[in-house]
Amino acid sequence: MSLIDLLQWRYATKKMDSSKIVPQEKVDLILEAIRLTASSSGLQPYEVLVVTNKEIREKIKAIAGDQSQVIDCSHLLIFAAWDHYTAKRINEAFDMTEEIRSFKSAAGDAYRQTLLGSYPSREAEHNFTHAAKQVYIGLGTALIAAASEQVDSTPMEGFNPKALDEILNLKERGLRSVVMLPLGYRKADEDWLVNLKKVRRSTENFISWIK
Amino acid sequence: MSLIDLLQWRYATKKMDSSKIVPQEKVDLILEAIRLTASSSGLQPYEVLVVTNKEIREKIKAIAGDQSQVIDCSHLLIFAAWDHYTAKRINEAFDMTEEIRSFKSAAGDAYRQTLLGSYPSREAEHNFTHAAKQVYIGLGTALIAAASEQVDSTPMEGFNPKALDEILNLKERGLRSVVMLPLGYRKADEDWLVNLKKVRRSTENFISWIK
Repeated sequence: MSLIDLLQWRYATKKMDSSKIVPQEKVDLILEAIRLTASSSGLQPYEVLVVTNKEIREKIKAIAGDQSQVIDCSHLLIFAAWDHYTAKRINEAFDMTEEIRSFKSAAGDAYRQTLLGSYPSREAEHNFTHAAKQVYIGLGTALIAAASEQVDSTPMEGFNPKALDEILNLKERGLRSVVMLPLGYRKADEDWLVNLKKVRRSTENFISWIK
Repeated sequence: MSLIDLLQWRYATKKMDSSKIVPQEKVDLILEAIRLTASSSGLQPYEVLVVTNKEIREKIKAIAGDQSQVIDCSHLLIFAAWDHYTAKRINEAFDMTEEIRSFKSAAGDAYRQTLLGSYPSREAEHNFTHAAKQVYIGLGTALIAAASEQVDSTPMEGFNPKALDEILNLKERGLRSVVMLPLGYRKADEDWLVNLKKVRRSTENFISWIK
């Protein structure tokens, strides 16, 4: 399928078939796509947790409006962003870059100092919001990656993030939950959305040209 | 190329060849991919402006750290999010859904009322931040769409958003600039980044499993 066909094919699956499990290699490919996509200054200021554990998913479902996909999916992805841009995290990212590329540069060091001089002194909430935006690049990537493997998914913001952070002990890891993405397979005969037309704003209302 | 190959191929192009123009059909495909991807509650709370005008791009370059891609690209995409979730905007989205699907439902109306009852009364800044996150789903999608057409691109947050809003008269349209994406073609012999290894956190540091 073309990219446009993949985007037409996917939809926010409302009912998943709990008897079907997404194969490991497909999950790995989706995770690899998320890992490879872009982020601001290349910091990748988030992590992805993959929850298969049933008991934990039951707890999550209870703080996510009882949405059935949380337990009917086979893999529940949780995107959790850094709660702050600390000097330690920024230095680790630049150190890794120097290590992988096997050289240091004046330009690279200047950029490191620019981030060190501005990010850590900003309010944690401001930094978390910036990090959370980067998550959505990963989310957009994951939607395409899942569709390319004919795996269904449902982006979910409808949960109590503080409660989820507690269930997953995210605070002690310096993370805060942002969005969830169950991966699984549609149960078409019980999914009210599967056969409805995709609704999108018209090109004329969404795109404008300045020539 | 596979999706993983596309993500490996793309990079934040630092020097573009101003003599090369991305064909209209490729730009249209990239824009269509953005239009088709997901957003929270399907509201698509942003617009994409495509700037080709040279004078306006010169003005934008001046408030974007003088980054050369702004004028060396052939098409400069500006993602601008809604400055607020107003009742009018929410109603328009639900009205459009009812029109395209040719029916009303109690569930749809209940969901409309839920959003009307919560979004417009929140602070505009809170709503803008939520809308801006949705932009990044579109951005992640655009990166893949561009790569699938062998078009180079550079995600850019490094600009003065208020100045950009003024240049493009976004305020009067109820929009605020979030991120830019020049589309063009790399000038490899003048691009310091093109041959450097892609740096990403290891899978072990980025993904964790809860089984």
